[in-house]
Amino acid sequence: MSPASTFEALAGELAEIGRLCYARGWALGTSGNFSAVTSRDPLTLAITTSGVDKGLLEAAHIVEIDERGRVRRGSGSPSAETALHLAIVRSRAAGAVLHTHSVWSTILSDSVEAAAGGLRIEGYEMLKGLNGIRTHEHGEWVPVVENTQDWTAAAPHIEVQLREQPEVHGILIRRHGLYTWGEDLAGAKRQLEILEFLLEAMGRKRGMTWQA
Amino acid sequence: MSPASTFEALAGELAEIGRLCYARGWALGTSGNFSAVTSRDPLTLAITTSGVDKGLLEAAHIVEIDERGRVRRGSGSPSAETALHLAIVRSRAAGAVLHTHSVWSTILSDSVEAAAGGLRIEGYEMLKGLNGIRTHEHGEWVPVVENTQDWTAAAPHIEVQLREQPEVHGILIRRHGLYTWGEDLAGAKRQLEILEFLLEAMGRKRGMTWQA
Amino acid sequence: MSPASTFEALAGELAEIGRLCYARGWALGTSGNFSAVTSRDPLTLAITTSGVDKGLLEAAHIVEIDERGRVRRGSGSPSAETALHLAIVRSRAAGAVLHTHSVWSTILSDSVEAAAGGLRIEGYEMLKGLNGIRTHEHGEWVPVVENTQDWTAAAPHIEVQLREQPEVHGILIRRHGLYTWGEDLAGAKRQLEILEFLLEAMGRKRGMTWQA
Amino acid sequence: MSPASTFEALAGELAEIGRLCYARGWALGTSGNFSAVTSRDPLTLAITTSGVDKGLLEAAHIVEIDERGRVRRGSGSPSAETALHLAIVRSRAAGAVLHTHSVWSTILSDSVEAAAGGLRIEGYEMLKGLNGIRTHEHGEWVPVVENTQDWTAAAPHIEVQLREQPEVHGILIRRHGLYTWGEDLAGAKRQLEILEFLLEAMGRKRGMTWQA
Repeated sequence: MSPASTFEALAGELAEIGRLCYARGWALGTSGNFSAVTSRDPLTLAITTSGVDKGLLEAAHIVEIDERGRVRRGSGSPSAETALHLAIVRSRAAGAVLHTHSVWSTILSDSVEAAAGGLRIEGYEMLKGLNGIRTHEHGEWVPVVENTQDWTAAAPHIEVQLREQPEVHGILIRRHGLYTWGEDLAGAKRQLEILEFLLEAMGRKRGMTWQA
Repeated sequence: MSPASTFEALAGELAEIGRLCYARGWALGTSGNFSAVTSRDPLTLAITTSGVDKGLLEAAHIVEIDERGRVRRGSGSPSAETALHLAIVRSRAAGAVLHTHSVWSTILSDSVEAAAGGLRIEGYEMLKGLNGIRTHEHGEWVPVVENTQDWTAAAPHIEVQLREQPEVHGILIRRHGLYTWGEDLAGAKRQLEILEFLLEAMGRKRGMTWQA
Repeated sequence: MSPASTFEALAGELAEIGRLCYARGWALGTSGNFSAVTSRDPLTLAITTSGVDKGLLEAAHIVEIDERGRVRRGSGSPSAETALHLAIVRSRAAGAVLHTHSVWSTILSDSVEAAAGGLRIEGYEMLKGLNGIRTHEHGEWVPVVENTQDWTAAAPHIEVQLREQPEVHGILIRRHGLYTWGEDLAGAKRQLEILEFLLEAMGRKRGMTWQA
Repeated sequence: MSPASTFEALAGELAEIGRLCYARGWALGTSGNFSAVTSRDPLTLAITTSGVDKGLLEAAHIVEIDERGRVRRGSGSPSAETALHLAIVRSRAAGAVLHTHSVWSTILSDSVEAAAGGLRIEGYEMLKGLNGIRTHEHGEWVPVVENTQDWTAAAPHIEVQLREQPEVHGILIRRHGLYTWGEDLAGAKRQLEILEFLLEAMGRKRGMTWQA
């Protein structure tokens, strides 16, 4: 376990980010989950518990888990998608993982383009806010993976995929939402806002051409 | 009547939910009404009074009514749709009922699809936030009922319909808005946010194909 | 002039409504103007002055004018559209007049339908929030008038039109915005939110069919 | 350098405008940058530093730079687009420059119309809020310039273009965002809100006709 002070500080920051996402409509109806690394060795994460209204999210709704998802501090059940958070932290050496359910990420993940396995976002200045991108002349590939209710089984496949695609900054789960990450919570929040912005721009621009 | 403390606590929570709905644009122009069960036996409800600006909603704007809609505590006229709140509480054993007028629920209730008597919402992860739904591989049926100005006459029909369709989590009234409910106010708020999210996603995705 | 206490109370309420409209994006860039009757005989109005950021609107930005638009209390220039406020107050016996520049009212005022002299809004429950409307089975006519920079010349024509169309609750000015009114500020705010809601619903539903 | 009191006051105002732009979704993901002239002779600017979350922008994130972009007060790196701020201040005698990344300005800058080198916005009342415009019967030309990562090289060309087009109130950078300015921060904020409003109205009205 991490020092209590580290956990408490990160739990407070996670709660604040959760409330912000709720206010923007990216985490309605108890959806969304958020985590931050509290220790690298052994690996522990502060992560939101299930079923909490993100508009009312407090540090007390955050637990600390170990690398197998077992609760080590606090009470409540960690998100059912905990295995995916751990897979991302391991494959990316990420310090924080944010998962949102916005209207635009939900729609885009289900577009004709996304049926090809992902979306390409090209030529926007906003791309420069993604870690390691230095020019707008960049084509960002956002993989779309199928949704599942068994993340324990699916997470290892995504971990492999993320190791094979080190240039990826976020993934969409079909008809579900967005996962992104960063070196720390501030960095992950930046990636989140950029990807949500770009998905909204793509959605508004391309319009409704993938209608069933 | 319920104990005064129960009523007062629920009236405060109803007022807070009303202000939240107003802020999101789901209860503009004094529209929307909200209720919570204060006692099961005899049945009493705390419910918003008519004509109140939901942005300024306070506990003092909530009255307690009995199972026939008569005011037992507080002052003001309960909503003209009180009979529908009571029908839902009875047929669903709900602890709270929320009714909003959002742009998307208004438009979707009037779509070509809705002309068939309802909307089907399928395959979204967000569906899992609805009570009793454990997978995104679910097709949610949202009935659309005709609008009326005589809810005393119409409510018994809806009560029958809701008893016949126990799997339903919300209903749309054509060109009017959404009704949903839950075991308590927090549960009803979750259903509301999920259904509003899904209706917005459907509206933005399908676009304008049902234009007159 | 009205008693100072009446003016000050209404100036405070006008400032609060202005800030709300700004927050909703209905009065950006110093646009929008708002008034309330402070005395009927002689007629005096509290009205916003020109060029003020509505997000920062304070009671000190409100002046009192007489029936000819001359400033009687406070400092600053009353809105260039003062003549229209006075025309509405006289023809409708209104207690308050609100004028907003929303994206949807701007677009709708310029639609193909609006080219016929107005928009008809039919069958929505929200219509019942308009003064005197008791059923959703109502067809509301919203006249669209041409924009001008000479409201002193145009206002008498609108005053005549409003006397001839006593059933009208609001008017659109082409590519400009919405005017509505009520018996007092709370009533005018209700009309505003309803009409803005209905215009947004119509805009989102009909889509882009009036494109040039 | 300017007096410390001038710099501190403007830094506080810049921070407030940055937080407002963030709240409206015009400066997500650390995007956007904002400046104000602190002295004319010698020319010095207060300007936001790179990489700051605009939702958390404080006066401490603002530095003062000279006419060659060197930091004279405060710590941090001034925006990579500093050369463009200086070019605008010089060619327009502006007192403040605001740069946002909104969804609508990003999309519009990339439209078929924009491929012709700019957008024309005609006939809207909102145009009157632009400096020097006295009637809605005005056609505003908004140039669209190509994006680059070398603003030191590009800024002189834009400075020439702005001197040749004194009637212009803002410029779009393709797939990047909007620049506008004013005699002071309040004036620049007004131009910003008006141009963002007009771009949103154009985007919503014209719809998706420029799709690739």
